[in-house]
Order: sequence, then C-alpha cells, then structure tokens
Amino acid sequence: MMKVKIVKNILDANDQMALENKKLFDETGVVAINIMASPGAGKTSLILKTIDLLGLPVAVVEGDIASTFDAEKVGAKKVPVVQINTGGACHLDAAMIRKAVKRLSLKGARVLFVENVGNLVCPAEFKLGESARVVVASVPEGDDKPYKYPGMFSAATAVVLNKIDTLPVIDFDMRRFKKGVHAVNAGAPIFEVSCKTGQGLDSWIEWLRKLAS
Amino acid sequence: MMKVKIVKNILDANDQMALENKKLFDETGVVAINIMASPGAGKTSLILKTIDLLGLPVAVVEGDIASTFDAEKVGAKKVPVVQINTGGACHLDAAMIRKAVKRLSLKGARVLFVENVGNLVCPAEFKLGESARVVVASVPEGDDKPYKYPGMFSAATAVVLNKIDTLPVIDFDMRRFKKGVHAVNAGAPIFEVSCKTGQGLDSWIEWLRKLAS
Repeated sequence: MMKVKIVKNILDANDQMALENKKLFDETGVVAINIMASPGAGKTSLILKTIDLLGLPVAVVEGDIASTFDAEKVGAKKVPVVQINTGGACHLDAAMIRKAVKRLSLKGARVLFVENVGNLVCPAEFKLGESARVVVASVPEGDDKPYKYPGMFSAATAVVLNKIDTLPVIDFDMRRFKKGVHAVNAGAPIFEVSCKTGQGLDSWIEWLRKLAS
Repeated sequence: MMKVKIVKNILDANDQMALENKKLFDETGVVAINIMASPGAGKTSLILKTIDLLGLPVAVVEGDIASTFDAEKVGAKKVPVVQINTGGACHLDAAMIRKAVKRLSLKGARVLFVENVGNLVCPAEFKLGESARVVVASVPEGDDKPYKYPGMFSAATAVVLNKIDTLPVIDFDMRRFKKGVHAVNAGAPIFEVSCKTGQGLDSWIEWLRKLAS
C-alpha cells in the first residue's frame, strides 16, 4: 500500500509540473512532441529526417541513460539541442524537461521534439507537457508489439512504423500490427515509413505541419 | 530521500527472495537463466531454437505485460511453461518467479529459462535467483546500444547478438558494438547468431551445456 501511495504521489506531482510545462510551451508558441519507442526503433533517425523535411524552426531535447551520440547528430543540423542523461532512470519526467528547456533557446521554435529514453513501458506513465505522443515502432521488432505493450500504444497520438525497407527480409504481418494498434487505440494514425530510404515520410510531415499550424 | 529509501527497501527485499529462489533451484538441480532484451530482439525465438538444439530437459517462465503468445509458442514444444502477465510492470521480480515456479513442474528439468519483460533498462535492477543473465541484442537495434544502456550490458553474464542475417541490409559496425560491450563488461562472451537461419547457435549451445553441467 505504502509503495502504491508513494507512486501515486510521484505521478500526481509529475502531472502538475507537466501542466506547467504545457503552459510555458503554449505561451512560447511551441508544440512539444514526446517521441517514445523501444531502443533502436529509430527515434533519432526520425527526428533527423523530420528536421530536413519539415521546413519549420525546431528545437530538440534528447533523453538517454548515458552517452551524447544523439544530441551530437542533431547538433550537426544546427538545431538547438539539449541532452538529458538520466543516469539510470528508465524514462524522462516533467521536472527533467523543465530543467532542460531552461538551457534551450525556444525563441522562434515552432516544434520541440523530445526524444524519450528507449523503453516501450515506463515513459508512457509520465506526461512531460507535450501536445502529442508519438510511438515509433519498427518492422524488425515484430508485428506483435501492440498486443504485448498495450499501455504504450494506447497512449499514442500517432504511431510511426519505421524500417519498412526491411519488410522483404523480416517476417511481419502488417494487418496484424495495425489490428493490434487499433484494438487499443482506434483513432491513432499509423505512418509507414523508412527513415533510411525516405519512403512514406510525406504523410508524417503533413500531419506534423497541421499539428503545428 | 523518502523515495530513495523505499526503492532501496524494495530492492533489498527482492534480493532476499532471489536468494531463496536460487537455493530452491540449486536443491532441484536446475540452472535458471534470466533472458533480458529490448522488445522484439528475439528472446522467444532464442528460447525456441535452444529447446530444439540443447538436448537437455528444460522449463520456461514467460514474462510479458500482456498476451500469452510466447507461452503458447513454447508450450507447442511440449515443454513445461508458465506465463506471467505483469499487467503493466516493466520487469519481473523474485516474488513473481517464486509464484510462477509453484505452478511449474521443475522435476527433471536441468535448465529454467526465464524470459523477462522486453525492456533494456529496468529488469537489470531485479535479481530473480538466476545463475546467469543473458542479454539478447539484435542487429537492427544498432551498434550503439551498449553505450546507451550500460547498466543492462554490465549486468550480463553473456551477450547474444541476434539477427545477424540482417547485416547485409542494416548499417551495423560489429567492432563498435563489441567495443561497447567490453567497455562495461570485459569478460562477457558475445555470441553472434541468427535464430532465423540457425547461424552461430552452436557456440551458444556449447556455452549453455557447460553452464548446466
């Protein structure tokens, strides 16, 4: 009971701070997007491709347990970026975002991408102040992921299915994947893309532009 | 402080129960192997292939947040199996294993495979009573995973790199991957395998047989 109560208190405090973050983003005129996925699904690749194609000023918060590889890749695009190293924690929380945003110039930015820690479970529990939650799945992970991780997929505003260029060499049943997503989240759009070849990114970019307009 | 203290108490209680599980496994003559990975790296595929090749009696505990797909696949091999559905929890713990093992016939089994929840972060914190911890990585996840998830890779007794059949279509630097594993875990053997084609599984099976002998 004790444990449950304390977890509830932590989540309540986080929700409160997420609301404050959201207010700050709204005042600044920036739309924050929380990007969540398993390790290696292609969150960073999606952000890098989107920076190239979106045609809007963006800023990025990179979340990782350790390392600064992703922030370096984003920084090379001359985009404002801050790396958060959680040092072990399995998700970002609203307090980390508040701290990160203080080190980031949001002035003029229209979209803030927040790349969460690679984890298909815990990040879904923690609001950050985002306007949309995007779950990136990838073909090599398999078509059963929405059935096994319903919490994450039910929390998604949109789902991006990455690495469709590997469909010829991976056993993946597209109908089963989509059925699984829509069983827990009937309205979520699913964008089938390859960040490697660029295939399918146009619909994703169009969706983002509407969100930011 | 409060939060930290309670987390410590939970981990201490888990360690104690893991020791009791280990004692039970030792008395029963079974070697328990905790298999951890990102979602979709191939934990179930590795267990299924290993059942075919090992030539020793095994039992399996399948951990998932939801669904029973994996237990059904293992059950089809006529192997004793129990499915744990954590209902949201991001890892297995020693109490779940104790409960699962009561529903499982370990009599005559030499190896107990425990497939953890797909998560490259949280499961590393919770001992289950295992003799070995095997981390399954996969080529499509990328060569940077040991650098980004050092806690998981440093906790591994062995690393299995799965899906090497996708090397021709995925950008993956094998030297970088191995360097990353050995930077946090100098002694861990790395088995390069494809559960799809069977390539490389002989060394893994040989290692397991030694562990179980």
